[in-house]
Amino acid sequence: MGGRKVPDVVVRRLPLYLRVLEELDVEETPIISSHELGEQSGVTPGQLRKDLSFFGVFGKQGVGYNTLYLREELRRILRLNQQVNVGLVGVGNLGMALIHYHKPKEDPNGIGLRLVAAFDIDPQKIGKRISDVPIYSVEKLPEVIRQLNISIIILAVPAEVTEDIFRRCIESGVRAFLNFAPGKLSAPGHVRVHATDVTLELESLAYYR
Amino acid sequence: MGGRKVPDVVVRRLPLYLRVLEELDVEETPIISSHELGEQSGVTPGQLRKDLSFFGVFGKQGVGYNTLYLREELRRILRLNQQVNVGLVGVGNLGMALIHYHKPKEDPNGIGLRLVAAFDIDPQKIGKRISDVPIYSVEKLPEVIRQLNISIIILAVPAEVTEDIFRRCIESGVRAFLNFAPGKLSAPGHVRVHATDVTLELESLAYYR
Repeated sequence: MGGRKVPDVVVRRLPLYLRVLEELDVEETPIISSHELGEQSGVTPGQLRKDLSFFGVFGKQGVGYNTLYLREELRRILRLNQQVNVGLVGVGNLGMALIHYHKPKEDPNGIGLRLVAAFDIDPQKIGKRISDVPIYSVEKLPEVIRQLNISIIILAVPAEVTEDIFRRCIESGVRAFLNFAPGKLSAPGHVRVHATDVTLELESLAYYR
Repeated sequence: MGGRKVPDVVVRRLPLYLRVLEELDVEETPIISSHELGEQSGVTPGQLRKDLSFFGVFGKQGVGYNTLYLREELRRILRLNQQVNVGLVGVGNLGMALIHYHKPKEDPNGIGLRLVAAFDIDPQKIGKRISDVPIYSVEKLPEVIRQLNISIIILAVPAEVTEDIFRRCIESGVRAFLNFAPGKLSAPGHVRVHATDVTLELESLAYYR
Protein backbone atom coordinates (compact mmCIF):
# COMPACT_ATOMS: atom_id res chain seq x y z
CA MET A 1 0.00 0.00 0.00
CA GLY A 2 2.14 2.85 -1.26
CA GLY A 3 -0.62 5.43 -1.40
CA ARG A 4 -0.94 6.37 2.26
CA LYS A 5 -1.16 10.06 1.46
CA VAL A 6 -4.02 9.78 -1.01
CA PRO A 7 -6.93 11.98 0.14
CA ASP A 8 -10.00 10.06 1.24
CA VAL A 9 -12.21 11.88 -1.28
CA VAL A 10 -10.04 10.39 -4.03
CA VAL A 11 -10.22 6.86 -2.60
CA ARG A 12 -14.00 7.24 -2.38
CA ARG A 13 -14.25 8.05 -6.09
CA LEU A 14 -12.24 5.03 -7.27
CA PRO A 15 -15.13 2.56 -6.82
CA LEU A 16 -17.28 4.84 -8.98
CA TYR A 17 -14.77 4.67 -11.81
CA LEU A 18 -14.46 0.94 -11.31
CA ARG A 19 -18.23 0.52 -11.50
CA VAL A 20 -18.44 2.44 -14.78
CA LEU A 21 -15.59 0.34 -16.21
CA GLU A 22 -17.21 -2.88 -15.03
CA GLU A 23 -20.44 -1.98 -16.77
CA LEU A 24 -18.67 -1.41 -20.09
CA ASP A 25 -18.54 -4.08 -22.74
CA VAL A 26 -14.79 -4.48 -23.29
CA GLU A 27 -15.27 -5.70 -26.88
CA GLU A 28 -17.33 -2.64 -27.66
CA THR A 29 -15.23 -0.14 -25.69
CA PRO A 30 -11.66 -1.45 -25.45
CA ILE A 31 -10.42 2.14 -24.93
CA ILE A 32 -12.17 4.93 -23.04
CA SER A 33 -11.29 8.63 -22.96
CA SER A 34 -10.97 10.54 -19.69
CA HIS A 35 -13.80 12.72 -20.99
CA GLU A 36 -16.15 9.76 -21.40
CA LEU A 37 -15.16 7.95 -18.21
CA GLY A 38 -15.35 11.21 -16.26
CA GLU A 39 -18.77 12.04 -17.62
CA GLN A 40 -20.18 8.60 -16.82
CA SER A 41 -18.74 8.83 -13.30
CA GLY A 42 -20.01 12.35 -12.73
CA VAL A 43 -16.62 14.11 -12.50
CA THR A 44 -14.68 16.37 -14.87
CA PRO A 45 -11.96 14.78 -17.06
CA GLY A 46 -9.40 16.86 -15.14
CA GLN A 47 -10.59 15.51 -11.80
CA LEU A 48 -10.45 11.95 -13.11
CA ARG A 49 -6.90 12.37 -14.44
CA LYS A 50 -5.80 14.00 -11.19
CA ASP A 51 -7.33 11.22 -9.10
CA LEU A 52 -5.65 8.49 -11.13
CA SER A 53 -2.30 10.32 -11.13
CA PHE A 54 -1.96 9.49 -7.42
CA PHE A 55 -1.42 5.89 -8.41
CA GLY A 56 0.67 6.13 -11.56
CA VAL A 57 0.20 6.63 -15.28
CA PHE A 58 -2.63 4.60 -16.76
CA GLY A 59 -3.60 6.23 -20.03
CA LYS A 60 -1.89 7.58 -23.12
CA GLN A 61 -2.22 11.28 -23.86
CA GLY A 62 -4.71 11.70 -26.68
CA VAL A 63 -5.60 8.00 -26.74
CA GLY A 64 -7.41 7.18 -23.49
CA TYR A 65 -7.44 4.34 -21.04
CA ASN A 66 -7.38 0.65 -21.82
CA THR A 67 -10.69 -0.42 -20.27
CA LEU A 68 -9.59 -3.86 -19.16
CA TYR A 69 -6.23 -2.71 -17.83
CA LEU A 70 -7.63 0.25 -15.86
CA ARG A 71 -10.31 -2.02 -14.39
CA GLU A 72 -7.68 -4.46 -13.18
CA GLU A 73 -5.50 -1.68 -11.86
CA LEU A 74 -8.36 -0.11 -9.91
CA ARG A 75 -9.20 -3.51 -8.40
CA ARG A 76 -5.57 -3.88 -7.39
CA ILE A 77 -5.36 -0.36 -5.92
CA LEU A 78 -8.57 -0.88 -3.94
CA ARG A 79 -7.30 -4.32 -2.91
CA LEU A 80 -10.40 -5.90 -4.42
CA ASN A 81 -8.33 -8.31 -6.55
CA GLN A 82 -8.66 -10.87 -3.77
CA GLN A 83 -11.51 -12.05 -1.59
CA VAL A 84 -12.41 -9.40 1.00
CA ASN A 85 -14.42 -10.82 3.86
CA VAL A 86 -17.03 -8.59 5.43
CA GLY A 87 -18.90 -9.10 8.72
CA LEU A 88 -22.16 -7.48 9.79
CA VAL A 89 -22.97 -6.80 13.44
CA GLY A 90 -26.67 -6.37 14.17
CA VAL A 91 -29.39 -8.34 12.40
CA GLY A 92 -32.32 -6.04 13.15
CA ASN A 93 -34.35 -4.38 10.40
CA LEU A 94 -31.35 -2.55 9.07
CA GLY A 95 -29.09 -5.60 9.19
CA MET A 96 -31.76 -7.65 7.41
CA ALA A 97 -32.07 -4.98 4.74
CA LEU A 98 -28.31 -4.96 4.29
CA ILE A 99 -28.21 -8.73 3.91
CA HIS A 100 -31.10 -8.78 1.45
CA TYR A 101 -30.61 -5.71 -0.66
CA HIS A 102 -26.95 -4.94 -0.39
CA LYS A 103 -25.36 -8.33 -0.19
CA PRO A 104 -22.19 -7.66 -2.13
CA LYS A 105 -22.35 -9.18 -5.57
CA GLU A 106 -20.20 -12.24 -5.44
CA ASP A 107 -17.67 -12.76 -8.11
CA PRO A 108 -17.57 -16.22 -9.72
CA ASN A 109 -13.77 -16.08 -9.41
CA GLY A 110 -14.07 -15.64 -5.67
CA ILE A 111 -12.57 -12.17 -5.60
CA GLY A 112 -14.02 -8.96 -4.19
CA LEU A 113 -16.38 -8.29 -1.31
CA ARG A 114 -18.07 -11.19 0.40
CA LEU A 115 -20.45 -10.98 3.34
CA VAL A 116 -19.32 -14.05 5.28
CA ALA A 117 -20.85 -13.62 8.74
CA ALA A 118 -23.48 -11.74 10.71
CA PHE A 119 -23.62 -11.30 14.49
CA ASP A 120 -26.50 -10.71 16.86
CA ILE A 121 -27.48 -11.17 20.52
CA ASP A 122 -30.90 -12.70 19.79
CA PRO A 123 -30.84 -16.48 20.55
CA GLN A 124 -33.68 -16.88 18.02
CA LYS A 125 -31.37 -15.67 15.28
CA ILE A 126 -28.03 -17.18 16.34
CA GLY A 127 -27.23 -20.36 14.44
CA LYS A 128 -29.61 -19.56 11.57
CA ARG A 129 -28.73 -18.43 8.07
CA ILE A 130 -30.23 -15.52 6.14
CA SER A 131 -29.58 -15.45 2.40
CA ASP A 132 -26.90 -18.01 3.09
CA VAL A 133 -25.12 -15.77 5.63
CA PRO A 134 -24.58 -17.55 8.98
CA ILE A 135 -25.54 -15.67 12.15
CA TYR A 136 -23.20 -15.97 15.12
CA SER A 137 -23.44 -14.77 18.69
CA VAL A 138 -21.84 -11.39 19.26
CA GLU A 139 -19.81 -13.17 21.96
CA LYS A 140 -17.98 -14.97 19.18
CA LEU A 141 -16.85 -11.82 17.38
CA PRO A 142 -13.08 -12.10 18.11
CA GLU A 143 -13.03 -15.81 17.28
CA VAL A 144 -15.03 -15.59 14.03
CA ILE A 145 -13.21 -12.46 12.84
CA ARG A 146 -9.92 -14.36 13.08
CA GLN A 147 -11.20 -17.67 11.73
CA LEU A 148 -12.89 -16.15 8.71
CA ASN A 149 -10.28 -13.45 8.20
CA ILE A 150 -12.86 -10.64 8.30
CA SER A 151 -11.28 -7.29 7.45
CA ILE A 152 -14.32 -4.99 7.17
CA ILE A 153 -17.12 -4.72 9.72
CA ILE A 154 -20.53 -3.15 9.15
CA LEU A 155 -22.01 -1.78 12.38
CA ALA A 156 -25.82 -1.89 12.35
CA VAL A 157 -26.44 -1.98 16.07
CA PRO A 158 -28.21 0.52 18.36
CA ALA A 159 -26.16 3.65 19.10
CA GLU A 160 -25.64 2.79 22.77
CA VAL A 161 -23.72 -0.42 22.08
CA THR A 162 -21.83 0.71 18.98
CA GLU A 163 -18.76 1.98 20.85
CA ASP A 164 -18.32 -1.29 22.72
CA ILE A 165 -18.66 -3.52 19.64
CA PHE A 166 -16.37 -1.17 17.72
CA ARG A 167 -13.66 -1.54 20.36
CA ARG A 168 -13.92 -5.32 20.40
CA CYS A 169 -13.57 -5.49 16.62
CA ILE A 170 -10.49 -3.24 16.68
CA GLU A 171 -8.96 -5.49 19.33
CA SER A 172 -9.52 -8.39 16.95
CA GLY A 173 -7.59 -6.59 14.23
CA VAL A 174 -10.32 -4.99 12.11
CA ARG A 175 -9.26 -1.65 10.65
CA ALA A 176 -12.17 -0.69 8.36
CA PHE A 177 -15.73 0.01 9.47
CA LEU A 178 -18.98 1.14 7.95
CA ASN A 179 -21.10 2.62 10.73
CA PHE A 180 -24.86 3.09 10.47
CA ALA A 181 -25.45 4.20 14.06
CA PRO A 182 -25.80 7.92 14.67
CA GLY A 183 -22.91 9.65 16.44
CA LYS A 184 -19.19 9.80 15.83
CA LEU A 185 -16.84 6.98 16.78
CA SER A 186 -13.41 8.05 17.91
CA ALA A 187 -11.02 5.81 16.04
CA PRO A 188 -7.29 5.26 16.52
CA GLY A 189 -5.13 6.52 13.65
CA HIS A 190 -4.83 3.20 11.83
CA VAL A 191 -8.59 2.59 11.86
CA ARG A 192 -10.92 3.96 9.18
CA VAL A 193 -14.61 4.57 9.81
CA HIS A 194 -17.05 5.56 7.09
CA ALA A 195 -20.36 6.64 8.51
CA THR A 196 -23.80 6.67 6.99
CA ASP A 197 -25.81 9.19 8.92
CA VAL A 198 -29.28 9.61 7.51
CA THR A 199 -30.07 12.71 9.56
CA LEU A 200 -26.99 14.54 8.26
CA GLU A 201 -27.94 13.56 4.70
CA LEU A 202 -31.48 14.84 5.14
CA GLU A 203 -30.25 18.06 6.72
CA SER A 204 -28.03 18.84 3.76
CA LEU A 205 -30.91 17.98 1.41
CA ALA A 206 -33.10 20.55 3.18
CA TYR A 207 -30.87 23.17 1.55
CA TYR A 208 -31.87 22.00 -1.93
CA ARG A 209 -35.58 21.46 -1.54
CA MET B 1 -31.77 31.02 -1.57
CA GLY B 2 -28.85 33.19 -2.60
CA GLY B 3 -26.20 30.47 -2.43
CA ARG B 4 -26.81 28.61 -5.67
CA LYS B 5 -23.12 28.41 -6.44
CA VAL B 6 -22.07 26.85 -3.13
CA PRO B 7 -20.29 23.52 -3.77
CA ASP B 8 -22.18 20.47 -2.58
CA VAL B 9 -19.26 19.35 -0.39
CA VAL B 10 -19.67 22.59 1.55
CA VAL B 11 -23.42 22.16 1.95
CA ARG B 12 -22.81 18.63 3.20
CA ARG B 13 -20.50 19.87 5.94
CA LEU B 14 -22.92 22.46 7.33
CA PRO B 15 -25.07 19.89 9.20
CA LEU B 16 -21.88 18.63 10.87
CA TYR B 17 -21.09 22.12 12.18
CA LEU B 18 -24.70 22.55 13.23
CA ARG B 19 -24.63 19.27 15.14
CA VAL B 20 -21.49 20.25 17.06
CA LEU B 21 -23.05 23.61 17.91
CA GLU B 22 -26.30 21.97 18.99
CA GLU B 23 -24.44 19.70 21.36
CA LEU B 24 -22.70 22.61 23.04
CA ASP B 25 -24.02 24.10 26.25
CA VAL B 26 -24.50 27.76 25.32
CA GLU B 27 -24.06 28.93 28.90
CA GLU B 28 -20.76 27.10 29.11
CA THR B 29 -19.55 27.92 25.60
CA PRO B 30 -21.15 31.18 24.46
CA ILE B 31 -18.27 31.74 22.02
CA ILE B 32 -16.38 29.07 20.05
CA SER B 33 -13.16 29.51 18.06
CA SER B 34 -12.83 28.25 14.49
CA HIS B 35 -10.05 26.03 15.80
CA GLU B 36 -12.31 24.35 18.35
CA LEU B 37 -15.40 24.10 16.12
CA GLY B 38 -13.25 22.81 13.27
CA GLU B 39 -11.60 20.19 15.43
CA GLN B 40 -14.90 18.92 16.82
CA SER B 41 -16.32 18.75 13.29
CA GLY B 42 -13.26 17.01 11.87
CA VAL B 43 -12.09 19.81 9.53
CA THR B 44 -9.27 22.34 9.69
CA PRO B 45 -10.03 25.86 11.00
CA GLY B 46 -9.22 27.18 7.52
CA GLN B 47 -11.72 24.85 5.89
CA LEU B 48 -14.40 25.85 8.38
CA ARG B 49 -13.81 29.58 7.79
CA LYS B 50 -13.81 29.06 4.03
CA ASP B 51 -17.06 27.06 4.16
CA LEU B 52 -18.81 29.70 6.25
CA SER B 53 -17.49 32.55 4.09
CA PHE B 54 -19.83 31.39 1.30
CA PHE B 55 -22.71 32.63 3.39
CA GLY B 56 -21.37 35.82 4.97
CA VAL B 57 -19.32 36.89 7.95
CA PHE B 58 -20.24 35.13 11.18
CA GLY B 59 -17.30 35.48 13.54
CA LYS B 60 -14.96 38.18 14.73
CA GLN B 61 -11.27 37.82 13.89
CA GLY B 62 -9.47 36.71 17.02
CA VAL B 63 -12.68 36.28 18.98
CA GLY B 64 -14.61 33.39 17.49
CA TYR B 65 -18.21 32.60 16.72
CA ASN B 66 -21.21 33.33 18.89
CA THR B 67 -22.52 29.80 19.46
CA LEU B 68 -26.19 30.66 19.55
CA TYR B 69 -26.03 33.03 16.61
CA LEU B 70 -24.06 30.66 14.35
CA ARG B 71 -26.45 27.85 15.24
CA GLU B 72 -29.44 29.96 14.21
CA GLU B 73 -27.68 31.10 11.05
CA LEU B 74 -26.82 27.55 10.01
CA ARG B 75 -30.42 26.51 10.55
CA ARG B 76 -31.55 29.41 8.41
CA ILE B 77 -29.01 28.64 5.65
CA LEU B 78 -30.02 24.97 5.62
CA ARG B 79 -33.67 26.03 5.70
CA LEU B 80 -34.15 24.00 8.86
CA ASN B 81 -35.60 26.99 10.74
CA GLN B 82 -39.04 25.79 9.71
CA GLN B 83 -40.78 22.41 9.61
CA VAL B 84 -39.39 20.27 6.80
CA ASN B 85 -41.69 17.40 5.92
CA VAL B 86 -40.08 14.16 4.80
CA GLY B 87 -41.73 11.16 3.14
CA LEU B 88 -40.42 7.61 2.96
CA VAL B 89 -41.26 5.30 0.07
CA GLY B 90 -40.83 1.60 0.84
CA VAL B 91 -41.60 0.07 4.22
CA GLY B 92 -39.53 -3.11 3.90
CA ASN B 93 -36.70 -3.96 6.27
CA LEU B 94 -34.77 -0.88 5.32
CA GLY B 95 -37.79 1.41 5.56
CA MET B 96 -38.65 -0.05 8.96
CA ALA B 97 -35.10 0.52 10.14
CA LEU B 98 -35.24 4.10 8.92
CA ILE B 99 -38.50 4.73 10.76
CA HIS B 100 -37.22 3.14 13.97
CA TYR B 101 -33.61 4.17 14.17
CA HIS B 102 -33.37 7.27 12.10
CA LYS B 103 -36.67 8.96 12.69
CA PRO B 104 -35.52 12.56 12.67
CA LYS B 105 -35.44 13.98 16.14
CA GLU B 106 -38.49 16.17 16.44
CA ASP B 107 -38.06 19.63 17.76
CA PRO B 108 -40.52 20.71 20.47
CA ASN B 109 -40.91 24.00 18.60
CA GLY B 110 -42.04 22.12 15.51
CA ILE B 111 -39.09 23.12 13.36
CA GLY B 112 -36.64 20.93 11.47
CA LEU B 113 -37.04 17.54 9.84
CA ARG B 114 -40.20 15.58 10.40
CA LEU B 115 -41.03 12.18 8.91
CA VAL B 116 -44.72 12.70 8.17
CA ALA B 117 -45.63 9.83 5.84
CA ALA B 118 -44.52 6.46 4.55
CA PHE B 119 -45.70 4.71 1.39
CA ASP B 120 -45.89 1.06 0.42
CA ILE B 121 -47.76 -1.29 -1.91
CA ASP B 122 -48.51 -3.95 0.74
CA PRO B 123 -52.24 -3.84 1.69
CA GLN B 124 -51.24 -5.32 5.08
CA LYS B 125 -49.24 -2.20 5.82
CA ILE B 126 -51.35 0.53 4.21
CA GLY B 127 -53.52 2.35 6.74
CA LYS B 128 -51.36 1.34 9.70
CA ARG B 129 -48.93 3.48 11.68
CA ILE B 130 -45.36 2.62 12.64
CA SER B 131 -43.79 4.76 15.37
CA ASP B 132 -46.64 7.15 14.76
CA VAL B 133 -45.86 7.47 11.04
CA PRO B 134 -48.92 6.74 8.86
CA ILE B 135 -48.48 4.37 5.91
CA TYR B 136 -50.23 5.27 2.67
CA SER B 137 -50.62 3.45 -0.61
CA VAL B 138 -47.96 4.36 -3.16
CA GLU B 139 -50.90 5.22 -5.43
CA LYS B 140 -51.55 8.22 -3.20
CA LEU B 141 -48.04 9.67 -3.54
CA PRO B 142 -48.97 12.80 -5.56
CA GLU B 143 -51.97 13.56 -3.37
CA VAL B 144 -50.21 13.09 0.00
CA ILE B 145 -47.06 14.93 -1.13
CA ARG B 146 -49.19 17.98 -1.89
CA GLN B 147 -51.49 17.72 1.12
CA LEU B 148 -48.66 17.30 3.64
CA ASN B 149 -46.28 19.60 1.81
CA ILE B 150 -43.54 16.96 1.63
CA SER B 151 -40.31 18.40 0.24
CA ILE B 152 -37.82 15.55 0.76
CA ILE B 153 -38.39 11.93 -0.25
CA ILE B 154 -36.40 8.93 0.98
CA LEU B 155 -36.38 6.11 -1.58
CA ALA B 156 -36.11 2.70 0.08
CA VAL B 157 -37.70 0.60 -2.65
CA PRO B 158 -36.23 -2.18 -4.79
CA ALA B 159 -33.91 -0.94 -7.54
CA GLU B 160 -36.29 -1.93 -10.36
CA VAL B 161 -39.07 0.41 -9.26
CA THR B 162 -36.93 3.31 -8.01
CA GLU B 163 -36.87 5.16 -11.33
CA ASP B 164 -40.66 5.10 -11.65
CA ILE B 165 -41.33 6.30 -8.08
CA PHE B 166 -38.63 8.93 -8.49
CA ARG B 167 -40.34 10.33 -11.59
CA ARG B 168 -43.73 10.44 -9.93
CA CYS B 169 -42.32 12.34 -6.94
CA ILE B 170 -40.63 14.89 -9.22
CA GLU B 171 -43.91 15.38 -11.06
CA SER B 172 -45.47 16.14 -7.68
CA GLY B 173 -42.90 18.86 -7.05
CA VAL B 174 -40.30 17.11 -4.87
CA ARG B 175 -36.76 18.36 -5.54
CA ALA B 176 -34.66 16.58 -2.91
CA PHE B 177 -34.14 12.83 -2.61
CA LEU B 178 -32.17 10.42 -0.50
CA ASN B 179 -31.81 7.20 -2.49
CA PHE B 180 -30.92 3.86 -0.91
CA ALA B 181 -31.36 1.74 -4.03
CA PRO B 182 -28.21 0.80 -5.93
CA GLY B 183 -27.70 2.51 -9.29
CA LYS B 184 -27.66 6.10 -10.42
CA LEU B 185 -30.85 8.09 -10.98
CA SER B 186 -30.70 10.63 -13.78
CA ALA B 187 -32.14 13.79 -12.32
CA PRO B 188 -33.19 17.02 -14.03
CA GLY B 189 -31.06 20.04 -13.12
CA HIS B 190 -33.32 21.40 -10.39
CA VAL B 191 -33.52 18.04 -8.60
CA ARG B 192 -30.94 16.92 -6.04
CA VAL B 193 -30.29 13.26 -5.27
CA HIS B 194 -28.02 12.09 -2.48
CA ALA B 195 -27.31 8.39 -2.69
CA THR B 196 -26.30 5.91 -0.06
CA ASP B 197 -24.62 3.05 -1.81
CA VAL B 198 -23.32 0.45 0.61
CA THR B 199 -21.30 -1.41 -2.00
CA LEU B 200 -19.38 1.72 -3.01
CA GLU B 201 -18.70 2.48 0.66
CA LEU B 202 -17.38 -1.02 1.26
CA GLU B 203 -15.25 -0.90 -1.87
CA SER B 204 -13.53 2.28 -0.73
CA LEU B 205 -13.05 0.74 2.72
CA ALA B 206 -11.25 -2.22 1.17
CA TYR B 207 -8.41 0.22 0.45
CA TYR B 208 -7.94 0.91 4.16
CA ARG B 209 -8.23 -2.55 5.64
